[in-house]
Amino acid sequence: MSSVIRILGIDPGSGATGWGVVECEGARLAYVGSGVIRPTRGLGHAQKLSIIFSALKGLIEVYHPDEAAVEETFVNASPRDALVLGQARGVCLLAPAEAGLDVAEYAANTVKKSVVGKGHADKSQIAAMVKVLLPKCEAPAADEADALAVAICHAHHAGMRRLERAS
Amino acid sequence: MSSVIRILGIDPGSGATGWGVVECEGARLAYVGSGVIRPTRGLGHAQKLSIIFSALKGLIEVYHPDEAAVEETFVNASPRDALVLGQARGVCLLAPAEAGLDVAEYAANTVKKSVVGKGHADKSQIAAMVKVLLPKCEAPAADEADALAVAICHAHHAGMRRLERAS
Repeated sequence: MSSVIRILGIDPGSGATGWGVVECEGARLAYVGSGVIRPTRGLGHAQKLSIIFSALKGLIEVYHPDEAAVEETFVNASPRDALVLGQARGVCLLAPAEAGLDVAEYAANTVKKSVVGKGHADKSQIAAMVKVLLPKCEAPAADEADALAVAICHAHHAGMRRLERAS
Repeated sequence: MSSVIRILGIDPGSGATGWGVVECEGARLAYVGSGVIRPTRGLGHAQKLSIIFSALKGLIEVYHPDEAAVEETFVNASPRDALVLGQARGVCLLAPAEAGLDVAEYAANTVKKSVVGKGHADKSQIAAMVKVLLPKCEAPAADEADALAVAICHAHHAGMRRLERAS
C-alpha cells in the first residue's frame, strides 16, 4: 500500500525563514510550493516572531501538510546570535505543532547527506540538487532550497521508517 | 491621572519558565499571581514549546494583563544551549504578542538594578527583594521571583516613560 504524504519543510532564520512543501508517494517526490518569510527589518523581536507564526499558520491552512520537518541549524554563531536564531526556530517548531502536526528535526549535515550525498555540501550544491529532484521548482532562493531540502530529507527518512514498520 | 496597569513578567528557560503578574498604580505595586511552567522532561522540542505557549495563552486569558515584559536572558552558554533557550524565549515573546500585548525586553542587569539596586545581584537577593516589594508573594521559586522582578522592572520603566510623556 502506498499513499501520498505532504511534507512542510522549514529552514528558520533570524532574518529570513525558508519554507517548502513537497509530496512523496513511495520513492516519488513532487514539488508543491515554496517561498521565504522575511519580516520587515527594524521591527521588535516579538513582532517579527508574530509575522513568522502567522505566515506559517496561513501556509499550513493553505497546503494542509501531513507532517513537518525543521532544520536543526548548525550553530556556528555567538551565543547571542544563537539565541536570536533560536527564537525564530522556536516559532517554526511551534506553528506546525499547534496545528497538530508531528514535527521532525534534522541536523544540517543529515539534510545535506540526504539530498547531495555528502554532509559538507555548500548552499549552491543543495539548490542544484533540489532542482534535479524537484524539476518543477525553478530557481529557488537559498533559504527556500534549504527548506525543500529538509522536506526531501524527511521524505527519505519517513519512507525508510514506513518500510521498516512494514517488514 | 493615575490608572492601574497589570503587567505579565516572563523569565524564559529551556527547562522551566517563570511567570508573574503584578499591578502598578503610580509608584504602588501589588502582587497578583505567579508560578512556573515546567514541561515534562523527555518530550520533543516542539511539544515542550506547545506546552509553554498554551500555558501562557491560558494565563493571559485568566489575568488579562495590559502589557508584558520578558527577561533578555544573559547568555553565558554554549551556542547550542543558547539556541535551545532561544526557542523557549521565542514562544514567550510570541504568546503575549499574539494576544495583542506590547512586549518589552529588559537585560538581566537592568532587571537586577531595578529591583535590588545593583546589576550583579544573585538569585537569592532578587527573591528577597521581590518579597519586600510584593509582601503578598510568599516564598517564590527562583524562576518565579525572576519573572516578578522583570514585571517590577517594567513597572518602573513604564512609569518613568509615562511621567516623561506627561511632563
